[in-house]
Amino acid sequence: MKTVKIGLIGLGSVGSSVMKFYSTNKELIRQKCNCDIEIKIVCDKDKSKKNILPFNVEFTDNYKKVLEDPEIDVVVELIGGLHPAYEIITEAIKCGKHIVTANKAVLSEYWDKIFGLANKYNKSIYFEAAVAAGIPVIQSLHEGLAGNKILGITGILNGTTNYILTLMSQQKCSYEVAVKRIQNMGIAESDVYYDVSGYDTACKLSILSSLAYSCWVKIKNIFVEGIEGIELQDIIFAESFGYSIKLLGNTQFYKNGYFFEVRKFLVNKKSVFANILYENNAVMFNGDYCGKILLAGKGAGGFPAASAVISDIIAIAKEIAEAVGGRMQYVRYIPKQINIINTKEVEDCFYLRFTTVDKAGVLAKIANILGKYKVSIASVYQKEPLFKHRRGVPIILITHKTKEKNIILALEKIKKLDVVLKTPIYMKIYSNN
Amino acid sequence: MKTVKIGLIGLGSVGSSVMKFYSTNKELIRQKCNCDIEIKIVCDKDKSKKNILPFNVEFTDNYKKVLEDPEIDVVVELIGGLHPAYEIITEAIKCGKHIVTANKAVLSEYWDKIFGLANKYNKSIYFEAAVAAGIPVIQSLHEGLAGNKILGITGILNGTTNYILTLMSQQKCSYEVAVKRIQNMGIAESDVYYDVSGYDTACKLSILSSLAYSCWVKIKNIFVEGIEGIELQDIIFAESFGYSIKLLGNTQFYKNGYFFEVRKFLVNKKSVFANILYENNAVMFNGDYCGKILLAGKGAGGFPAASAVISDIIAIAKEIAEAVGGRMQYVRYIPKQINIINTKEVEDCFYLRFTTVDKAGVLAKIANILGKYKVSIASVYQKEPLFKHRRGVPIILITHKTKEKNIILALEKIKKLDVVLKTPIYMKIYSNN
Repeated sequence: MKTVKIGLIGLGSVGSSVMKFYSTNKELIRQKCNCDIEIKIVCDKDKSKKNILPFNVEFTDNYKKVLEDPEIDVVVELIGGLHPAYEIITEAIKCGKHIVTANKAVLSEYWDKIFGLANKYNKSIYFEAAVAAGIPVIQSLHEGLAGNKILGITGILNGTTNYILTLMSQQKCSYEVAVKRIQNMGIAESDVYYDVSGYDTACKLSILSSLAYSCWVKIKNIFVEGIEGIELQDIIFAESFGYSIKLLGNTQFYKNGYFFEVRKFLVNKKSVFANILYENNAVMFNGDYCGKILLAGKGAGGFPAASAVISDIIAIAKEIAEAVGGRMQYVRYIPKQINIINTKEVEDCFYLRFTTVDKAGVLAKIANILGKYKVSIASVYQKEPLFKHRRGVPIILITHKTKEKNIILALEKIKKLDVVLKTPIYMKIYSNN
Repeated sequence: MKTVKIGLIGLGSVGSSVMKFYSTNKELIRQKCNCDIEIKIVCDKDKSKKNILPFNVEFTDNYKKVLEDPEIDVVVELIGGLHPAYEIITEAIKCGKHIVTANKAVLSEYWDKIFGLANKYNKSIYFEAAVAAGIPVIQSLHEGLAGNKILGITGILNGTTNYILTLMSQQKCSYEVAVKRIQNMGIAESDVYYDVSGYDTACKLSILSSLAYSCWVKIKNIFVEGIEGIELQDIIFAESFGYSIKLLGNTQFYKNGYFFEVRKFLVNKKSVFANILYENNAVMFNGDYCGKILLAGKGAGGFPAASAVISDIIAIAKEIAEAVGGRMQYVRYIPKQINIINTKEVEDCFYLRFTTVDKAGVLAKIANILGKYKVSIASVYQKEPLFKHRRGVPIILITHKTKEKNIILALEKIKKLDVVLKTPIYMKIYSNN
């Protein structure tokens, strides 16, 4: 029986969980592969990681040693970040290795280069753990729904931001307090920038879209807005109208192309996304024949991510054992263009919040400007301010469907009104159109 | 470029949808395979089906013609039922064909024979459409979660029964009326026996369990109860306590083995299953590393099932194009035993409903017998009868965790009490243990 040899680089949370998974479920893994898998060498720049290994295995702090080992069939890259992950992956391909990676950043930034190289060298790249950890979203999209025209993908793709929004909603605490709490719980890193800015979600949306539409959807083609500084009052107001606020990655077929966005949405409390709490992730694919398919589960954490990495290792090991590794590349990259629609041109309903002076006629002034920009109002809520010590009173409007660019132009005018005390807030309402 | 040739048998709802899918999305399918796929011959015993074909293709009413065609690489069996589907599949394997099937009955009844034969002849059998139509549950379980020890699987696996329960709950109609309505809507067949008896769900649970535990879980090892004759009052009472009633297929690791059951459950209204309505399906897998993963979507209908069939055709075509078809059989069958736990020995909470005379002391008599059988009561509801014209008053009890066999023994005694007017009703409460 063939033994497939693995070199694993990066012993952080995911890497050490892969080692644990491999050591506890070795027999199950073997049964699935119909071959033996040996983790032959592991690498981390931190030499002390050697002490956390659950079994005896060669250790190095020099990744080149892994790439240059002629016995290694598969390099598992788990260091994250752009560099040297990019160099590791590309050099490994050139050294004749297949790749398993959990790295969403490097794939979304260098999709064409990495898959182009894999094509050239006939190597497979598996990356299930790069999106939604242990939920098999990559495989489901790429294989399970193969042949469908994908009409849309929407997902809660970042566990940290979803946890922050869950805490704010449940504990009625501020953004800053929620961030601190989950950092103290060990759920978020000390630097949450990549999470809360929406960048992490954008990387994942880029990967899912690139797969779905068989092209490279660059991050610069995605409208990206994070949750930084989201105000508790918007969460509370949204809830009082039957909505939760969620950070969604979203792409939809629209007119003659696709649009791409990462932003805060108001989602109906009865919708599936409203009920995805804490660090859970959920992705909905809409295919022309399969209809809407939802996948949900733990989207973060070492063990769930390790589950995806191990399933990738098994998939490539099966191919290698039959001497067809790379002959059927997992993703065939064909450089191709799709028509990208500017999100500002997409019609949707919006939530608007104004902070104004408490005087008669304010609403009329606002409504007047909105009307000029063809923004039609579906409902108006003039609420008591939630925090009495703050200046001004809130006016909340829900619009009918309108282009975002009209909202932006109208708000530019409205914020200049002397009765408006702060920059107006607006968010899209998720309609799954 | 290699052309993979397909013979398709059965032009019912799924078969004709596959033909439509293939004709509309041909280019997308081709891209995914990296080879050409040709549906070379189609077969249906009803010759008039020839007229519904969306493109020119050889037609026959004799399935042997498909099996004996030496050019055919893959036989797609979509006739359903045990016979002659079993004969078609086994003869096709012997003729050197790979199999794609949507047939849950034949797989669950002949798992060992079919996969044994496939092993012998080195042929692949793909069967994504056999469970939950277009939701890629087979692939996710078999590949996406590969290496995980599966601790449990729970699912709403039958669209017809879920639609009946949804209608009863929403329209407050009787079981009989709900069945009639969905038959009139064309959603259910004229014969709903296989759906409402739980048999269809049991076939699907058998397939999922057999895959998950790498053995053959026979239907006779599954406790099967359907929804026939479910009373509206139980749905209404359950709702008043915060539960929905759902038909679930369920297997869990318990003590030193697994139990298997298809039955009506009370599920918490906040749980994901309570929110799966109409013909939708949902499956939750619980793996030791991946945690709980949910997949949901349309579990019935020609197009969603066709989506699964096409994804299977693409998977096998990729292998055939690389001349490795069957070298990596999709499912390797290893005859193996697992320890099966009798569901009667499993501890859970239960919903009990008694119809009694309206007299003091009745509850004490019932509680006394329950106590003797160690059934401890968590809560008691003595409700006004919903239908005043009916005889007796309802008493509803929710129990603490107890073995089902204790419930059964206690109810045997209780129903003999002269104050009890009808056979007591009991249902399990889903606790996801």
